[in-house]
Amino acid sequence: MTPQASTPAYRRLGVEERRRQLLEAALSLFAHRAPEEVSLDDVAEAAGVSRPLVYRYFPGGKQQLYEAALMSAADELRNCFDEPREGPMLPRLSRALDRYLAFVDQHDAGFSALLQGGSVVETSRTTAIVDGVRRAAAEHILRHLGVTGPGPRLRMTIRMWITAVEAASLIWLDEGKQPPLEELRDWLVEQFVAVLVVTARRDAQTDALVGTLTAEL
Amino acid sequence: MTPQASTPAYRRLGVEERRRQLLEAALSLFAHRAPEEVSLDDVAEAAGVSRPLVYRYFPGGKQQLYEAALMSAADELRNCFDEPREGPMLPRLSRALDRYLAFVDQHDAGFSALLQGGSVVETSRTTAIVDGVRRAAAEHILRHLGVTGPGPRLRMTIRMWITAVEAASLIWLDEGKQPPLEELRDWLVEQFVAVLVVTARRDAQTDALVGTLTAEL
Repeated sequence: MTPQASTPAYRRLGVEERRRQLLEAALSLFAHRAPEEVSLDDVAEAAGVSRPLVYRYFPGGKQQLYEAALMSAADELRNCFDEPREGPMLPRLSRALDRYLAFVDQHDAGFSALLQGGSVVETSRTTAIVDGVRRAAAEHILRHLGVTGPGPRLRMTIRMWITAVEAASLIWLDEGKQPPLEELRDWLVEQFVAVLVVTARRDAQTDALVGTLTAEL
Repeated sequence: MTPQASTPAYRRLGVEERRRQLLEAALSLFAHRAPEEVSLDDVAEAAGVSRPLVYRYFPGGKQQLYEAALMSAADELRNCFDEPREGPMLPRLSRALDRYLAFVDQHDAGFSALLQGGSVVETSRTTAIVDGVRRAAAEHILRHLGVTGPGPRLRMTIRMWITAVEAASLIWLDEGKQPPLEELRDWLVEQFVAVLVVTARRDAQTDALVGTLTAEL
């Protein structure tokens, strides 16, 4: 191996490593521009490879690359909620939100484009990916709460809160990232408790849960 | 005029009247099927007119018809929140929610398709129409609350609640319209108060508002 062969621009990568590199390049482009403003040439340039190489890995072109990048972002988002199931519940939720909000902060424009579905490459398949993340977040939360058979009212409350968190993230990006992340996080946790308390008035399962949560405070 | 000329199928309508008739037909089709499953032939058949006539009114074809139907639905939705500004605040919100939920109930599948953006004719323009309704709802609420210069925390709270209401509507349709509409409405009003109370802890403007609202209870 000559020294030149190991400089980043010409480095030979394994298939998986190359794929990951292309996805990273795509994600960081989608992070700051709407998908319709990113071309395969941009991705090739950002990754320091040729356009044909990008096509070799993503023969479906931009739509395939976009979906793969979306899946990879979805995996990252899912991991945000992967918190050890120990210690008091609300601090766990705070830590998960910290990771989620850091992701939002880091991917800003790409995150908005992703969730608002204003993209030209939007299809029911990409919508399904985003919905999968929402469902995963709801399941994580229910598991942390120790609920196995959530009733409709509890499930609806959790899903509404998740949507409200999403809306808050988009508005937060829109408003120049105000209020500060720590305040936003605490505020969202407090809203979580508040909406559960409201549901507890009409649902015994939620009422029992709220008992456990408020005993922690 | 012969009697035949006045039977519905062959009735001559004025331009505005015909346009409205076609939109109504389209809306009622979109109400029970996703937009991509509705063809111009279906609309022509439902309205009892020929396909060329539909094209004469909507030369842009399905995309134009879909957008026009969306605008008309958006107008209807906006009207839901048009409530006289008199009497206590929370009953006003209840009445607006009653009208909104009746719209959701009546347009079910079309409402889901509209809001979930899973449609093939989804464009940033249709997204903008839906966003316009959300913004209008937020403005209506702030006007009812008598707020003229809403700060970022109050605005964010209202917008989050509106998104949560939307999510609740979609879940409600998804879950066979459970719980009953009256319970859903009361629950949403209670959540409205609860999230404002949480925001009031960190925002003087919201705190003053909550004082007024809870004095009503």
